[in-house]
Amino acid sequence: MKNVFSKYIDSLQASVISSLEQVDGLGKFKKDSWSRIEGGGGLTMVLENGNVFEKGGVNVSKVHGKLPESMSTMLNTKDSDFYACGISIVLHPKNPMVPTFHANLRYFELYNNGALKDRWFGGGLDLTPYYIFENDVIHFHANCKSSCDKYDLSFYNNYKKKCDEYFWNSHRNEARGVGGLFFDYCRENNEMSVDKWFSFIKEMGQCILNSYIPIVEKRKNETFNELNVNWQQIRRGRYVEFNLLHDKGTLFGLKTKGRIESILISMPPKVKWAYDFNPAKDSNEEKLVKILESPKNWV
Amino acid sequence: MKNVFSKYIDSLQASVISSLEQVDGLGKFKKDSWSRIEGGGGLTMVLENGNVFEKGGVNVSKVHGKLPESMSTMLNTKDSDFYACGISIVLHPKNPMVPTFHANLRYFELYNNGALKDRWFGGGLDLTPYYIFENDVIHFHANCKSSCDKYDLSFYNNYKKKCDEYFWNSHRNEARGVGGLFFDYCRENNEMSVDKWFSFIKEMGQCILNSYIPIVEKRKNETFNELNVNWQQIRRGRYVEFNLLHDKGTLFGLKTKGRIESILISMPPKVKWAYDFNPAKDSNEEKLVKILESPKNWV
Repeated sequence: MKNVFSKYIDSLQASVISSLEQVDGLGKFKKDSWSRIEGGGGLTMVLENGNVFEKGGVNVSKVHGKLPESMSTMLNTKDSDFYACGISIVLHPKNPMVPTFHANLRYFELYNNGALKDRWFGGGLDLTPYYIFENDVIHFHANCKSSCDKYDLSFYNNYKKKCDEYFWNSHRNEARGVGGLFFDYCRENNEMSVDKWFSFIKEMGQCILNSYIPIVEKRKNETFNELNVNWQQIRRGRYVEFNLLHDKGTLFGLKTKGRIESILISMPPKVKWAYDFNPAKDSNEEKLVKILESPKNWV
Repeated sequence: MKNVFSKYIDSLQASVISSLEQVDGLGKFKKDSWSRIEGGGGLTMVLENGNVFEKGGVNVSKVHGKLPESMSTMLNTKDSDFYACGISIVLHPKNPMVPTFHANLRYFELYNNGALKDRWFGGGLDLTPYYIFENDVIHFHANCKSSCDKYDLSFYNNYKKKCDEYFWNSHRNEARGVGGLFFDYCRENNEMSVDKWFSFIKEMGQCILNSYIPIVEKRKNETFNELNVNWQQIRRGRYVEFNLLHDKGTLFGLKTKGRIESILISMPPKVKWAYDFNPAKDSNEEKLVKILESPKNWV
């Protein structure tokens, strides 16, 4: 499975990049491959100052070796070796009417004395708009749901709830965005073999493209003004706060001495912090804030 | 002491604000007073879009009540009530040739059944330049040293070292800035009575003005260009990373449900993250990076 998954994320990286460059029309992704002293490495693909995307990263990493102590504690295991590979996507569009997008698909194996002891899949995708277009959010969630429903009718509700819980900016008492899906520790069981989970992951890979790209196409030429950009940059501050204060992936990467620039590729390009900024009553900005107060059911 | 200290930080807040408004020439601090349900409150003073200061906060807080559990654990105490008051200053100048400045002075009391069990002072001040003017850094440290030397010849070296250790951006393997002083748990002992510590704190209050204001005056009219601002905004990203990933005060405030806008007043106004940005060889930007690789002795 690790070879199969590894090839799959390479091909997904290539097809996501190709779709994004097509939507952008100008920006091209630059390659940056890196290796990890302890074993493995990755291919970071980054786009900056595109026509549609102000900054975007589509990263693949494949790392292996001795399990770092912080990871053994977190996973509560005595198994000593691991293999982990995954693809991670973060896109920060220039136009404030186009939402920021994040997705991640990953596979993990644990060994003891060379023998496979445990393995699982994880991942998800979520949307962070600056302005709410309800139909866009419904489209996004409807795509997530129909992908999930092909495998198990309970998946969408479960994974949507996990996403809402995970992307909660607790110190602000608000959601980071309008959610999506979040799943982890997806192990083989009576209903789902490893192959079936892999097939679900590939469905999620397709869902990344189907759920987000049409929204970008629809909104990338919306008009916007300086006030919209100001609001976008202030909201991006909340994205930074989430990633540095709460995001387990980011904190884990930093604590285990991962490659800094690949981890922090998720940081938005331009960000503002204004003291106690509150949107005007009944404005579109206030509409967003109200929606982020508590998770909504979109489909 | 708590009443004496409380009055002192009120007067220091007023005099710092008056000095800063004079240096700025345009910006005025706005008042925002707040109260804490569990006991106490504070006065947040904020300046935005000044002539010299793009954003600055001079905050006083005086809080008391039951010790939150996270604090009991950190302080390793069974005492149940506390009183804490302090002044905190963060200044982000517009001109990249003027360094960012941070200072803090605080006093803490612990009680059990109404009886005073422990009390101490803490605080410090530190400088975060974007461009290195060696004489400015030497002036800053020389002021810190001469203030410390009035009390104990070991203070400067000890507190300078603690500052370098504290403001270390470990995930970047670099210093946040060029340091200054950091001291904590300053309790009465054979050499220093509580009154003498308070006198030292007042010396530090004077040092805040003497060490930083002359640098602002000297550099506020330096010419700068877009590339300098770009560098300043990228470096401000490191400031954000430090405060959200490592700063105990910030994390503590957020975990104990402190007032968010007063805690995050330390965030710079405009920030950039560019992928793997590296300054040109032998540039002034590279000079800063090299200096931040390891703590230096400036005096």
